[in-house]
Amino acid sequence: MKVGIVGSTGYGGVELYRLLSNHPEVRECVLYSSSLDGTPYTEQYPHLYGISEQRVHPIDEEQMKGLDVVFLATPSGISKKMTPGLLGGQAKVIDLSGDLRLKERGAYETWYHGEAAPADTLERAVYGLAECNGRSIRDAELIANPGCFPTAVLLGLYPLAAAGRIKPGSVIIDAKTGLSGAGRKASLAGHFAETQENFRIYKVHEHQHTPEIEQQLHEWALDAGPITFSTHLVPMTRGIMATIYVELKDPSSTEELLASYREEYDDHPFVRVRPKGGFPGTKEVFGTNYCDIGLSMDERTGRVTIVSVIDNLMKGAAGQAVQNMNMMFGWHETTGLHHYPIYP
Amino acid sequence: MKVGIVGSTGYGGVELYRLLSNHPEVRECVLYSSSLDGTPYTEQYPHLYGISEQRVHPIDEEQMKGLDVVFLATPSGISKKMTPGLLGGQAKVIDLSGDLRLKERGAYETWYHGEAAPADTLERAVYGLAECNGRSIRDAELIANPGCFPTAVLLGLYPLAAAGRIKPGSVIIDAKTGLSGAGRKASLAGHFAETQENFRIYKVHEHQHTPEIEQQLHEWALDAGPITFSTHLVPMTRGIMATIYVELKDPSSTEELLASYREEYDDHPFVRVRPKGGFPGTKEVFGTNYCDIGLSMDERTGRVTIVSVIDNLMKGAAGQAVQNMNMMFGWHETTGLHHYPIYP
Amino acid sequence: MKVGIVGSTGYGGVELYRLLSNHPEVRECVLYSSSLDGTPYTEQYPHLYGISEQRVHPIDEEQMKGLDVVFLATPSGISKKMTPGLLGGQAKVIDLSGDLRLKERGAYETWYHGEAAPADTLERAVYGLAECNGRSIRDAELIANPGCFPTAVLLGLYPLAAAGRIKPGSVIIDAKTGLSGAGRKASLAGHFAETQENFRIYKVHEHQHTPEIEQQLHEWALDAGPITFSTHLVPMTRGIMATIYVELKDPSSTEELLASYREEYDDHPFVRVRPKGGFPGTKEVFGTNYCDIGLSMDERTGRVTIVSVIDNLMKGAAGQAVQNMNMMFGWHETTGLHHYPIYP
Amino acid sequence: MKVGIVGSTGYGGVELYRLLSNHPEVRECVLYSSSLDGTPYTEQYPHLYGISEQRVHPIDEEQMKGLDVVFLATPSGISKKMTPGLLGGQAKVIDLSGDLRLKERGAYETWYHGEAAPADTLERAVYGLAECNGRSIRDAELIANPGCFPTAVLLGLYPLAAAGRIKPGSVIIDAKTGLSGAGRKASLAGHFAETQENFRIYKVHEHQHTPEIEQQLHEWALDAGPITFSTHLVPMTRGIMATIYVELKDPSSTEELLASYREEYDDHPFVRVRPKGGFPGTKEVFGTNYCDIGLSMDERTGRVTIVSVIDNLMKGAAGQAVQNMNMMFGWHETTGLHHYPIYP
Repeated sequence: MKVGIVGSTGYGGVELYRLLSNHPEVRECVLYSSSLDGTPYTEQYPHLYGISEQRVHPIDEEQMKGLDVVFLATPSGISKKMTPGLLGGQAKVIDLSGDLRLKERGAYETWYHGEAAPADTLERAVYGLAECNGRSIRDAELIANPGCFPTAVLLGLYPLAAAGRIKPGSVIIDAKTGLSGAGRKASLAGHFAETQENFRIYKVHEHQHTPEIEQQLHEWALDAGPITFSTHLVPMTRGIMATIYVELKDPSSTEELLASYREEYDDHPFVRVRPKGGFPGTKEVFGTNYCDIGLSMDERTGRVTIVSVIDNLMKGAAGQAVQNMNMMFGWHETTGLHHYPIYP
Repeated sequence: MKVGIVGSTGYGGVELYRLLSNHPEVRECVLYSSSLDGTPYTEQYPHLYGISEQRVHPIDEEQMKGLDVVFLATPSGISKKMTPGLLGGQAKVIDLSGDLRLKERGAYETWYHGEAAPADTLERAVYGLAECNGRSIRDAELIANPGCFPTAVLLGLYPLAAAGRIKPGSVIIDAKTGLSGAGRKASLAGHFAETQENFRIYKVHEHQHTPEIEQQLHEWALDAGPITFSTHLVPMTRGIMATIYVELKDPSSTEELLASYREEYDDHPFVRVRPKGGFPGTKEVFGTNYCDIGLSMDERTGRVTIVSVIDNLMKGAAGQAVQNMNMMFGWHETTGLHHYPIYP
Repeated sequence: MKVGIVGSTGYGGVELYRLLSNHPEVRECVLYSSSLDGTPYTEQYPHLYGISEQRVHPIDEEQMKGLDVVFLATPSGISKKMTPGLLGGQAKVIDLSGDLRLKERGAYETWYHGEAAPADTLERAVYGLAECNGRSIRDAELIANPGCFPTAVLLGLYPLAAAGRIKPGSVIIDAKTGLSGAGRKASLAGHFAETQENFRIYKVHEHQHTPEIEQQLHEWALDAGPITFSTHLVPMTRGIMATIYVELKDPSSTEELLASYREEYDDHPFVRVRPKGGFPGTKEVFGTNYCDIGLSMDERTGRVTIVSVIDNLMKGAAGQAVQNMNMMFGWHETTGLHHYPIYP
Repeated sequence: MKVGIVGSTGYGGVELYRLLSNHPEVRECVLYSSSLDGTPYTEQYPHLYGISEQRVHPIDEEQMKGLDVVFLATPSGISKKMTPGLLGGQAKVIDLSGDLRLKERGAYETWYHGEAAPADTLERAVYGLAECNGRSIRDAELIANPGCFPTAVLLGLYPLAAAGRIKPGSVIIDAKTGLSGAGRKASLAGHFAETQENFRIYKVHEHQHTPEIEQQLHEWALDAGPITFSTHLVPMTRGIMATIYVELKDPSSTEELLASYREEYDDHPFVRVRPKGGFPGTKEVFGTNYCDIGLSMDERTGRVTIVSVIDNLMKGAAGQAVQNMNMMFGWHETTGLHHYPIYP
């Protein structure tokens, strides 16, 4: 297997490189970037000094078509242009950007403020939420890898949504992320002195992951209604927690709900449902592809509080992309992803 | 004025000391602790070396009764025993613990897992939410200083609640705090290596500030219903953000809501209502007594998202306690509290 | 008193604003920036919302000349051009940049890689190390405010150097700083995700504060020799620690050395010499103008280890600048600088 | 292979568990603790939920003697008592504590303030500095695994010391560590609110790693003299940087020195000597067994500045312990240690 990473200089790209370089089925990993032309990768990432002797190549679509898989770890707006061409080759494509996730072109235009990808490209893209869309993923040639927040949120809601148990319009999601989610580009918002000792909310009611969550949620439960979705920045590097509040059509108990989650995820090694009273912190999945879930039914209010945590660069980006590759090629989904959390 | 601080070795105590030592109306500040007997304060807090030559004295109720004000910055369980005796003297008492906040003794016993304070003591205690209960505070001899979370949450809800605009049962509060809120006692949960790069939820559906919020909320709006309240630990030292989700009885707009908040808080210098589109981060109130509020009406869901931030040791504890003292003695409420945020 | 701050949008500028707005002798504080023209200051710094209604004005040298003091909190390269013109007016000038600190123009050119300020401007500039050069500062019209590292280092060495006790060539300084020292401009090196959990060295043997330290050191002790000086970045916002290793011409003891430091700094309220065995951490001076010093003689090696900590934005920049203003105008040096450390 | 970890509930223990569970030659890993009796390991470390089903067993020396290797990841004072008994069995022993590192019993007693291990046990212990003592390690039955600071420092000095190039008495080491080095036991010094935004020095001239460094240094270079050694706490979890200042007997250049380091470490995959002008940050080795080294000759002072970084829990503890195990059993030293740094 020979794979390519476009956007290799970003955080998603370098995390893909870490995973793919140690993947037993991958023989070679070619690095691309729109801004570099032959620079050693270690100039961008000195932590790879002595490990990687690779250079970063300019984009070359013809060459990429001949690879087995192309990972697009690019900002929004690139993949919608590049993917149609790539699909003519032999390479399967896994797009980590938001360009191919929304099926309705109008939704993309509303939330991403730009023109959507061609309709036929969107049609071919399979939404790569690995634990839920396995069948389609196995047959896919083009994966729209889920966003970091949608991954945490949707895995937290799936067992309730798929069973039609959610009371319409009751879903509220309060999400928190570390700074690496904002990428490597220097900005005032990501400046250390502005970030340390600062907990902030951002893009209130305007986050582009809102329609992505709703699209999948409504596929499972047409009546789930619109969601309220907030995103916050935590002064840490990696990790997402989604705290999800939801009402049920029919009352239940913490025990019953946990049992249904455990059953749903029984065959899914990357989802760890915690026992009653246990709630995961983000550090407990640091550096891994796990999604950890805890929940509790509040008898005072009748609401369920669900906590779902992931490492945004792993299960929320590169890790799930590799999991998708594994499934597309018929390997076990955990291949190359057997990491233990780094703790502490 | 001669004041005393009981529990002076904790974080609330040392913050009180910072404020009271620089307060123009306070001539002397006596430090007490149940565990120390004459130790120089700088042994506990070397940052005061060369500033403070005070010693920490053992508890002496008779002596305390002769002071003008006694601040109780003690853990839960102390004040309920100490306050009844103190009230026989000339000292006014400001209790920063949770012992005297809940009017119903049963609620205390349910949420604090211990016996409540005597009924007559509870009756005399005025809930010191400075911006809302000013009239009672001015006449009070005993203040139950609000909890850190309740302060942020209640100030965020007050204009809606007092106007009877909240849809019953719709209030969900997702709160986040820095670590100093947990006090100075060493614990695994507060250990640096367990905390850094870790965002955690705790006491799910069991936080003792829940009934405190509901008690005040229901005083304003009897029909507001039970709240859903979650608390999280952010890897930072100071700061609380409450993200509050609420539905209104009658629809409105962001502009109208902001206008009503501005009107409500017009005469309250410590509440800063941000302009439309502006949301405060916790660092913007660092080291000050401000409560900053931003909000937005989400037209897609009809829900309002309200963000309220404070410094938990200031407006959430020592700062509000001093503000209460100011009001009890007829000084301007900002006396000794003119700090600018430390930024960055 | 009417003062101006040039470079008001940087961290040094906003810290000056915090201090000067609360300074009892300052009636008005005008803000300047080379890049803004009338923008409200709160657009740059929302933490001042409701506190400051000021706007940031474009540079206007004629207007500035009429002020009482102009603070130049600008990057290197601005002050050397602007100061000569300003000195023709009534305003005294306090320059926080490195432009006017080095008396030898060649040294500036070697270490700053640009042309030095005019010789006559350099001649008029008094090096504003407040505790050591008080006499000259009181008569000065132009202050070259010391760099952050030189302040910590020189105060740590002064009692030994002034007494001629340092063994030539033996001074090694290992300095560490928080990120705010690098300013507010977004950069990859200051990006949160690159900084958190990262301790780095930078500008090895090339830091521009090296000749500044040597210049003053050699004024005290001509034979002190060249210094070895290293600078490191700590994942924190504020604070500098200089760990200084030095050999003495004649052996001594920790006690004797501490006594000589205490004597030297007895009349200097901002220098706190710790008792034997006590060493300050950076948090113990957070938000204040203190320089805290601890030291120990190592009998095994005959070397002295001196630890000196400051808040880089206060004693290392804005705080010392205000202290210099106080001295230039004959006020007590602590005027407007009575802050307690924010702890925790 | 069946191995045991004593002290499995500490940070060194859980890091060993992460490595040994994924080690291709290790079939089973038994966990011991002096304080637990059959508790599931995930109660201590919930991040292992769903990964580990192991329980922590009480100490059982007889059982341990039958294992292939016993790792002692215990605090000082345990191993000196336990090791003599263990050595009678078939198990090889790798001790991560400081008990067996100092050959002179008097030195232990001076620096560790307790009785030293029996002389014959000390005699059998091989100092496991993997890159330098390979021959003895391969034949050893008992390894004294080096301390975290000594590992970084000694690897930084080895090429100069072994070549006899160090000017006697010229070595000064300014070392910095993350908080995990202090272990998992809750303490005020490790409390988050005391640590964040705080850079501190500790154990000035009294750190117990001083004699360990000198012992090995003097084995290489009898005339190297005593060292000055300082240790600091950085507000981060993992990582050590040693900044080392040294004078040479004969002058040299950065280029020549780097070439000699590269030659010395050519066959040692875990030591990465950086190119001229490149200096590693601690994050560049996060989660790995690398020791990264950069250096520069300062022509102004004739001193060399050497920077050596490691992850204190990996190369500074568990990683090197596994590397030693690999060498003792004749496997390639990198077996089970092929981690890429987690970045960012």
